[in-house]
Formats: sequence, C-alpha cells, structure tokens
Amino acid sequence: MSYPELRHDVFLRALLRQPVEYTPLWLMRQAGRYLPEYKATRARAGSFMGLATNPDLATEVTLQPLERFAFDAAILFSDILTVPDAMGLGLSFAEGEGPRFAHPVRDEAAVARLAVPDLAKLEYVFEAVRRIRSALDGRVPLIGFSGSPFTLACYMVEGAGSTDYRTIKTMLYQRPDLLHRILQINADAVAEYLNAQIDAGAQAVMIFDSWGGVLADGDFQEFSLAYSRQVLSRITREAEGRQVPAVLFTKGGGHWLEAIAAAGSDAVGLDWTVNLGEARRRVQDRVALQGNLDPMVLFANPEQVAARARRVIEDFGPVTPGAGHVFNLGHGISQFTPPESVSALVETVHQHSRRFHTPA
Amino acid sequence: MSYPELRHDVFLRALLRQPVEYTPLWLMRQAGRYLPEYKATRARAGSFMGLATNPDLATEVTLQPLERFAFDAAILFSDILTVPDAMGLGLSFAEGEGPRFAHPVRDEAAVARLAVPDLAKLEYVFEAVRRIRSALDGRVPLIGFSGSPFTLACYMVEGAGSTDYRTIKTMLYQRPDLLHRILQINADAVAEYLNAQIDAGAQAVMIFDSWGGVLADGDFQEFSLAYSRQVLSRITREAEGRQVPAVLFTKGGGHWLEAIAAAGSDAVGLDWTVNLGEARRRVQDRVALQGNLDPMVLFANPEQVAARARRVIEDFGPVTPGAGHVFNLGHGISQFTPPESVSALVETVHQHSRRFHTPA
Repeated sequence: MSYPELRHDVFLRALLRQPVEYTPLWLMRQAGRYLPEYKATRARAGSFMGLATNPDLATEVTLQPLERFAFDAAILFSDILTVPDAMGLGLSFAEGEGPRFAHPVRDEAAVARLAVPDLAKLEYVFEAVRRIRSALDGRVPLIGFSGSPFTLACYMVEGAGSTDYRTIKTMLYQRPDLLHRILQINADAVAEYLNAQIDAGAQAVMIFDSWGGVLADGDFQEFSLAYSRQVLSRITREAEGRQVPAVLFTKGGGHWLEAIAAAGSDAVGLDWTVNLGEARRRVQDRVALQGNLDPMVLFANPEQVAARARRVIEDFGPVTPGAGHVFNLGHGISQFTPPESVSALVETVHQHSRRFHTPA
Repeated sequence: MSYPELRHDVFLRALLRQPVEYTPLWLMRQAGRYLPEYKATRARAGSFMGLATNPDLATEVTLQPLERFAFDAAILFSDILTVPDAMGLGLSFAEGEGPRFAHPVRDEAAVARLAVPDLAKLEYVFEAVRRIRSALDGRVPLIGFSGSPFTLACYMVEGAGSTDYRTIKTMLYQRPDLLHRILQINADAVAEYLNAQIDAGAQAVMIFDSWGGVLADGDFQEFSLAYSRQVLSRITREAEGRQVPAVLFTKGGGHWLEAIAAAGSDAVGLDWTVNLGEARRRVQDRVALQGNLDPMVLFANPEQVAARARRVIEDFGPVTPGAGHVFNLGHGISQFTPPESVSALVETVHQHSRRFHTPA
C-alpha cells in the first residue's frame, strides 16, 4: 500500500530528537467529547464501540480536531481495550459508566484459556488506520497506540475501572505466576497489534501505561515496565523508508523516569506532576520528552492558558541539538474543555517555542 | 489535666529519631470498618457523624484495634472534615457515598464569608482526645490529626470527592487569589485545631495531605506545601514535659520528598510507590520516615504479608543512630482487609525489625 507523501514531519523529527523550528503538539484524546462535531458523529454511531469499530466513522472523528486546530499529529481513534475484547472477554460500555468485561480473568482456569487473539478480529482497527492515512493525505503523521500489557491486565482482571486495584493486586501478591502469564500473553498481543498498525500505516506508536503508577516500587519494574520493554524491543522501527518512533507514557511514573527512559522508546510521556526541566536533566536528553500541561489548565481563560503553556516550554528550556520536546497534556483532555482554550494553547506553543529552537 | 504516665513510647522515640529496639507500627485507619467490633459500634451510633461527634463512642472505636493488635500508637477516631464542617459548610455522609458539603466555597462571596471557626464547635473532638487519653491509661501514645490546608480546600471547593479536581483547579488557575485566601484561613484553623488537640492530650500530630499529589509541580509547593509548612511552624512542640512530634503525609508526594522533608515536620509519611531506602538517602535521615506497605498486600496470605513487610524493613535498612522508621501502610487500610493479615503484619514487623536496630 502506498500513501501520499508526508508533508509535515515536525512531530516525527521532534520524537527522534532531530532539529525542528518549533515545538510540535497534539493532545491525548484530541478526537473526543469536548468537540460538538465528535458528539454528533458519536450519536450517529449509536454507541461508543459502534464508533470505534466502524472504520469510516473512526476516520471521520480522527480528522475532526485537525480541521479546528493546527495539531502536528493525528492519533487513531480507537479504544485501549480492543485487544482484550478480541481475546473474547466481552467488552461493553454502559452509558455514563466506564468499560466493563463480561468475563474477567481472575483464576487459573481463566488464565489458561487466555491466548493472543487472532489479529483478523482487529481488522477494523487496521482498516481505520488505512482509511485515515488516505484521508490525511500527508498533512500530518498518524499515531497508532495500545494500552501497556499491565494496563490491559488491570481491566482484564478487575473487569472494570477500579479505585484501589484490589483484584489485580491480590493476584499480584498471591499468585504472581498467574499475573506474569497474563502479562506475557498481553505483551505478545500488543507487539503484534502495534506492528499490524505500523504495517497498515501508523507512522509513530504510543504505549499508554495508564495504571502502572499504582504499583509499589519494585512491582512497577517487574509487572509493568518489563513487559512494555518487551513490546518496545519487538516493534518495527522503520516503515515507508522512515523511522517509526515509539513513545511510552506512564501516568504517575515520575519517580521511575530513569528506568522508563531506558526501556527502549524514543520518547517518554510525562504527566504534570513532573517538572520538565528536571526530567530532562534526569534523562540527559537520551530520549525525547512528551508533555506535560495539566489538562485542567484549559479551564482557565486564554491568557492564563497561554502563560501556563509558556511555562512548560520554558521548563523544558532551549531545545539544543540532540534534544526533543513534543508538547502535550499530562493526561487526556477533559470532555468539558472549552475548545477556545485549545486554540489559545496551539497558538502559544507554536509561536512561543520558536525562540527555544536553534535554526538548522 | 494530668494523665497516667506513658509506659510505651517507642513510637514517639522513633519519630524523633531516638534509639529504639524494634520498629514501631500503627496503621492509617486502624480504627475502622475492617473490624467487626467497629461496625457494631458504628451501627449503634446510627451514622458516621453520629459516631465521630460522640466522645464516648469515638473513645470506644479508637481503643478497639489495640485490643486485637500490638500497635504502638492509637490515633484519634475522627474525620478530616470536622474543620470545614465547623466553618458552617454543612457536612453530610450519604450511605455508601463519600462526604458532601451543602455549601461549597466556589466564588468570591463564599470566600469572603469564610472564617476560622470557633473552636468551641469542635469541643467534641477535644473531649474525645481527653477521654481516649484517660482510657489509654498510658498504654501507647495518642496521635491527633488534621487534613492539610490544601486537602481540606479540595473538599470545600469541590463540595465532595472528585476524580479530576476540576473545580478547585479551575479556581487555582483562574483565581489563585481566592484559593490563597481559603488556604490561609485553613492554615490558621488547622494550626489552632491541632494545638487544641495537643492541649487536650494528643502526644503526636499528623497532617494528611491526601490530595496535594494531584497538583502540578510548582503548584504543589505554592498551594499545598507552603501552607502545611505554616501549620508546622505554629504548632506546639512540647506538652507534659515531652516533645510532641509532627508527621506530614503526602499521598503521591514522592518526587517532592526533599521539599516535603524540609517543611518542618519530624517525620514524613510515604506511600508505597516510593522505595524507602532511596527515600532515606534523599532525605539523609534529617527526618524519620513513616510507611509504606501497599494496603493491598494485606489481601495476600499471611506468609506473603510477612515477606512483603520484611522487604519494607530491609528497604529502610539498619536503623543507625539518628535515623527513624515507623512502619505503616502507604494509605488507609481497606475496609475489606482480613484481620488475620494485620496480625501477621504486626508480628513480623516487631520480630523481624529487631536485628535492624542497634542496642542502646
């Protein structure tokens, strides 16, 4: 399959720590409920999974934020739970609630039944990637993604979101062997899944470790990071004659930054509790950094949004040769965000960051 | 008021980094729903606030865990929201839900009305302290406590618990002046409140900054830590001829550990995401450390609980002269915890820690 040539690669270059003229940005969950046009498409789809599994509608919502904002990347519209769904766990979304699995994986028998899913069941995802690439027509690169092996396991074992992760942690402390088996299957599945997204046309990939940060020190390294590292070692790093950069985001992973940065990704995503300047000193520019404005800043007025965005750029500091910064929020954008705040953010980042980049 | 002499001060000495023979322990929320006897008293009280505001019943539940377990300290049974309740915000607890305020503080007018409450309204707390001290009869020291100024403000502004802290963060980003006024009033109130607990007989005090960890780097220091520091600088440090140690606990505060340790407390409470050995190197034994087992470990079997408890003790390492460790969980004990796990924990900590202490 051959796609139109990429005309705007500042995002990919920043992830690879190559010179760029300004700091690129995109936002986690940029195709989402804060946009009225998203809500309209979502209503036509009938349900969230109806939207996520329809390649035409997924393409439509992936491109929506690019019509409003000068984002430097698009991200595949999908859900992080597509892989466990394809494993047969029975994913559903009750209105106004989070995801739920009909068949959570909680005992030895359920773990024994678990297997890497047939990727044919995820064809709707790869078809969406192909249609989005065609529709993007080279405007900006497309990011593919997956939940981390541990984050997927959280939902698979808990059966739903959790506040204390009691079920998966009971397994971790009582039957670490079972959890390791789940995580190995997840790592195999995630590696295949990301590679199939890259084969279909994803130009960068991101692993979301949304829940690794709830683990104790020591357990994070053993049950979360080790499996993300495996995935990173197995994904394709070149396609269409270009490098395919990989980003690893760990919510609440600030104190493990050195270890996360050594896990094999090109860039590390950070939440807002970390100071970007300190983070940069700690990783010594061995990886690019992505982040890290508090999504709640977007509830302030546009001048305040701009001031806070400037502070993030200044915290990172001059983007010297060999350094890389991609601006993002520290977590997904809130559904209640006023779109005007996003306009103020995009303009500030693109303008204010120019003085921090060395002309090539 | 004169109380029976304290016969067991290992907890106070460990907080003050004085020599002890073993590592003392107590558990956050040790008087609580995991104990059937607590549930029975709670049922007699009719409601949670009925229990918290009745000094006789508060005394009863404070002492219950000491009958079962060899804890080295008792902690006043109360709620962290007594102070905003006394400010007239109308606290209630709906069954099965968290706390709720009828009159949240969200605008300039509400902030203008806010004032340090008349401590007479909190007399039920001080009376509970007095009765508990008498009932303890010198067995173990009694810990008084308060929410931090910022954590109280979270509830006061949000009006209830929150997942994204959107309301208080909108105020923080849009009207930092209003939030600073609330925090100053809270700091004044918390200092008076803790001093009144000490006057009544509390032998150590703890500030719970349960939500400071949701703030961005920079904001944590300005909106949370600065006000906890104020409180710490104003509380009485001696009573009944003894030092009254103060502990500052910040959930999710791991990356700010050096700053937290310099805020004026004798000890710093840590959650389980931090490695105690690393934490100790970072603070260089300038403060004692309290923590930090994941409360979910208590859902494993007794041998596994013991192994994990030993690991925490070993992570801290030898308790050399000038160092101090108080064992605790990294957060409150879960209501679903089997009490047998607590027995295994207490025995392990008391026995296994002896070899890590230098004989006096």
